[in-house]
Amino acid sequence: MQVRRDQPPPFAHRATFDRIPLGSGREFDLIRTIIGDVVAPAPGVVVGPGDDCAILDGGLAISLDTSIEDVHFRGDWLRPDEIGYRAVAAALSDLAAVAAQPIGILVALAVPAARATELAPELMRGARAAAAAHGAALLGGDLSGSPGPLMIDVAAIGRADEPILRRGAQVGDALWVTGTLGGAAAAAGAWLAGRTPDADARQAFARPAPRLREARWLAARGVLRAMIDLSDGLAGDAGHIAAANTLRAVVEAELVPVHPAAVRAGAGERARALALHGGEDYELLFAAPPGTVDGLVTVFVDEFAIPLTRIGVLAEGAGVALRHRDGTEAALAGGYDHFGRNDT
Amino acid sequence: MQVRRDQPPPFAHRATFDRIPLGSGREFDLIRTIIGDVVAPAPGVVVGPGDDCAILDGGLAISLDTSIEDVHFRGDWLRPDEIGYRAVAAALSDLAAVAAQPIGILVALAVPAARATELAPELMRGARAAAAAHGAALLGGDLSGSPGPLMIDVAAIGRADEPILRRGAQVGDALWVTGTLGGAAAAAGAWLAGRTPDADARQAFARPAPRLREARWLAARGVLRAMIDLSDGLAGDAGHIAAANTLRAVVEAELVPVHPAAVRAGAGERARALALHGGEDYELLFAAPPGTVDGLVTVFVDEFAIPLTRIGVLAEGAGVALRHRDGTEAALAGGYDHFGRNDT
Repeated sequence: MQVRRDQPPPFAHRATFDRIPLGSGREFDLIRTIIGDVVAPAPGVVVGPGDDCAILDGGLAISLDTSIEDVHFRGDWLRPDEIGYRAVAAALSDLAAVAAQPIGILVALAVPAARATELAPELMRGARAAAAAHGAALLGGDLSGSPGPLMIDVAAIGRADEPILRRGAQVGDALWVTGTLGGAAAAAGAWLAGRTPDADARQAFARPAPRLREARWLAARGVLRAMIDLSDGLAGDAGHIAAANTLRAVVEAELVPVHPAAVRAGAGERARALALHGGEDYELLFAAPPGTVDGLVTVFVDEFAIPLTRIGVLAEGAGVALRHRDGTEAALAGGYDHFGRNDT
Repeated sequence: MQVRRDQPPPFAHRATFDRIPLGSGREFDLIRTIIGDVVAPAPGVVVGPGDDCAILDGGLAISLDTSIEDVHFRGDWLRPDEIGYRAVAAALSDLAAVAAQPIGILVALAVPAARATELAPELMRGARAAAAAHGAALLGGDLSGSPGPLMIDVAAIGRADEPILRRGAQVGDALWVTGTLGGAAAAAGAWLAGRTPDADARQAFARPAPRLREARWLAARGVLRAMIDLSDGLAGDAGHIAAANTLRAVVEAELVPVHPAAVRAGAGERARALALHGGEDYELLFAAPPGTVDGLVTVFVDEFAIPLTRIGVLAEGAGVALRHRDGTEAALAGGYDHFGRNDT
């Protein structure tokens, strides 16, 4: 049985083909098709397609991330500098997902020519602010006119001496998430409904905080067996972790930390749906051996001022299950599909 | 005095803001504005914005390159696999420009959703072919729906133990180019005029050959003082070399090696205009101490089966001059401007 969503996700999510094995869905089928046979090992490459970053010999981590107007955001939702900030923060989140320290970014802008003089400097001001906030240098990039929407591609480069991958988890490992989920989705939902999102929701959408320091802090404590950043939404990304480990992710519904703005956006199941499916939270989901993280929570919260929450467990099987306190359990479909139906 | 072009360039060129100092033009003014103060040195970064690639400690070279439908190509000119091939070849050419050896690429596709199932696998087939032809692994990427044109961004990563930069040339250095120029422009010109380009021109446009082996061969012989790849066109890129070295590039008109297809496309000045301004040739332009390359030409031609031609010299001053055999000389404006007028 599949849980039918309360509503389609409020905005389209990026989909990476740096992720195989992937969860289910037409988009991921397409990604598998286009990747083809390229997962063969290559000289100098430690991790190729199939994770949040590629990892080269020596620990260099690289990711490439796209933000497109009317797909990942709407031009009238955000100021241009926020669009730039958000695009870079999203790209840096891929470095966080492998516990890498940022080195720098390259930014390719495709800007409608009529608005270029106005937009490009503001986009780059935001991009530079996000990079500077996380210790990444602006290394270069590319500027083109666009005959269509505004597009920003960000290549993020970092160093991960001991990268954490999506695979590496074991049966019985606990699943944890940083922060709270559904804030960005609450903002997008408000905009799509013609309302003004509340300030917290808007902040979550416009200025996501990639968990770079948090990831390295956790990695340094040796508790991370597998990790991913939450871009497709908890349901979808838990599916990627499950698939990468040939296991089943069991998420306990009542444990999922819901962003206060998502709670305000809708009570109960509606709030939880935002947290489960909303996506673009850029929090971390990781698997840790049972009992290893609980003793770190207080110190983590003191250090980073965000929650650290156990939300479930990895079990034998496949896919993602949502388990309720009353013992009922249902398969959880996840992730926005650019190229398919999104209501199942 | 500015040389007025016979015609506007046949297609729009990519413009990188990894290039400062840059030649003149409104687009480059905009690039300078958006780059702002980011050229300060950063930890781990040997070369930041301002060259064809960023260079990290340890010699890692990285570039990011955009190809957009109706800007860099038209969808009806090329098959989808050729679009993918060309985008990757263009990105790898940035590695050639610093004499780097390719490691891998990441490819971000934004594909109109209605055509995704048909287009994405073919785009990636071409992208993979270009990568494989030059020893680059496919490291990952990103797949999105596009509400507008097809876009491909390619991040190229390589290793350059002794990178060749745009700066480093001296007064009196000879300017050399690999291959012949104007072939891609001849194809685009034919398409724009409603004709079918000849096979050689089409090949030059659809399957450009980044000069990776040639660059490393020349670098190994110690003759390269400064280098750039010809993406904006000889006039524009010679302007970048001149600006990077605070010198004047003097190009001898009659020495410029014109692609046979450009010669067939138009006699005399028309052919030369394609070679000077056409762009997207992905050949190399480099500065070498006088007399150092002449003795290598025969071996180079034997090895790579393309010409190696001295086309001018670097002199005191600024900008680019086109000198004719009769002694007349004129300033040469170069490069397609995405955001300004292109007829002066």
